[in-house]
Amino acid sequence: MPEQGSLTFVLGGARSGKSRHAETLVSACPAPWAYIATAQAFDDEMRERIALHRDRRDGRWHTVETPLDLADAIGRIPGGQALLVDCLTLWLTNVMLAERNVEAACQDLANMLARPRGPWFVVSNEVGLGIVPDNRLGRAFRDAAGRLNQMIAAKADAVLFMVAGLPMKVK
Amino acid sequence: MPEQGSLTFVLGGARSGKSRHAETLVSACPAPWAYIATAQAFDDEMRERIALHRDRRDGRWHTVETPLDLADAIGRIPGGQALLVDCLTLWLTNVMLAERNVEAACQDLANMLARPRGPWFVVSNEVGLGIVPDNRLGRAFRDAAGRLNQMIAAKADAVLFMVAGLPMKVK
Amino acid sequence: MPEQGSLTFVLGGARSGKSRHAETLVSACPAPWAYIATAQAFDDEMRERIALHRDRRDGRWHTVETPLDLADAIGRIPGGQALLVDCLTLWLTNVMLAERNVEAACQDLANMLARPRGPWFVVSNEVGLGIVPDNRLGRAFRDAAGRLNQMIAAKADAVLFMVAGLPMKVK
Repeated sequence: MPEQGSLTFVLGGARSGKSRHAETLVSACPAPWAYIATAQAFDDEMRERIALHRDRRDGRWHTVETPLDLADAIGRIPGGQALLVDCLTLWLTNVMLAERNVEAACQDLANMLARPRGPWFVVSNEVGLGIVPDNRLGRAFRDAAGRLNQMIAAKADAVLFMVAGLPMKVK
Repeated sequence: MPEQGSLTFVLGGARSGKSRHAETLVSACPAPWAYIATAQAFDDEMRERIALHRDRRDGRWHTVETPLDLADAIGRIPGGQALLVDCLTLWLTNVMLAERNVEAACQDLANMLARPRGPWFVVSNEVGLGIVPDNRLGRAFRDAAGRLNQMIAAKADAVLFMVAGLPMKVK
Repeated sequence: MPEQGSLTFVLGGARSGKSRHAETLVSACPAPWAYIATAQAFDDEMRERIALHRDRRDGRWHTVETPLDLADAIGRIPGGQALLVDCLTLWLTNVMLAERNVEAACQDLANMLARPRGPWFVVSNEVGLGIVPDNRLGRAFRDAAGRLNQMIAAKADAVLFMVAGLPMKVK
């Protein structure tokens, strides 16, 4: 079990078992557990993915849906409570689609995560290991996601890289 | 040399040296070696890739071409014989193109690999570390491949993640 | 600080902190430091990326812009001087766009890097961990990049895989 004021960053590809592994880590902390979901259900495919994740979590999870104001939502979590944020990549997508200031939003989030008030766990996607996207938006998103992951990893006490459901210790 | 009844899972990106590394591991076991190839030559590009791989293997390799019925083919390998399956990702592509039941096929395969009857080695691609594919089929394939990799990694005695031809020990 | 005649290979995805980490490693060697930049500014987006990287480097860096003749440029670096080559993937793109012989160029480069005459550092992108590119050129590039990375990693004394700004030791 991680210490009270600690940040664990769980990074991985699509279907690498990030969320499940992070949930397992949180479940080892005393309940109740806070869950901040950043996903927005734009279509049936997304609704299905969200429902799949939700079905895994029982009543000891307190879920807050927060597509945009993530730093604020984290600030409202009671001190000492275990927290899972899932995931930064969807949040970043929402911030970019809402045409907010990406740099400022990422900096706010990093500042909030730099002072964890409980055992905090944050999930994010690694998206930079394929070939260069063929459109400018894809490249901009990939750059922003990579920069954000670096900012959070620098502040984290532990960083895990998920490969086929298994964690590799990076930090 | 791995133990008689053991499963080694070799995972990596395109041209990461997965197949070559797995062949080296198998070659350290007593010959003959069984090789189950899942590739299908649809076009010249694929035919060329298959020929390149085949040219590396000498007469001690017994090759079986199995685009679809992989669990059955593995079941017919003599007990105690070293086996290389290359690779799961192409097999999954074949299963999806043939419109078979993906979930059932993956479960059958996982059940077969859970009880290795020799030193068995399975090669697969990690495909989930780029940006989100822009079409639903690409996303469905990526999800299915990630889920399959997690199932096999969970049952494996050893999991290697290949980076530029070099193995990183995951499990 | 690495030894005089040594090659360190820093591999990672887009925005994984490869360049910054390699610069930090070079900065621990005695100045001046040679910097071979392979980027070509075709458009504003690229010009901006190049300027961002350049702004990080002070006057102790001696920069040589070398989009194509990389082995020759490395051959002209004074013995004993720390060298950073950033990056192989852009160089490979240039070689392919110029329709040069890719295999010969990669072999020349690998031969040159096999005999480092100082603490040498080479940065490259891992591009093979997404789904299969939907066009033949993308697949050809991905294959060539993977093959090149394997060649260089085989000759390197140290290989680092960058994840969210943090190095994982591969070799």
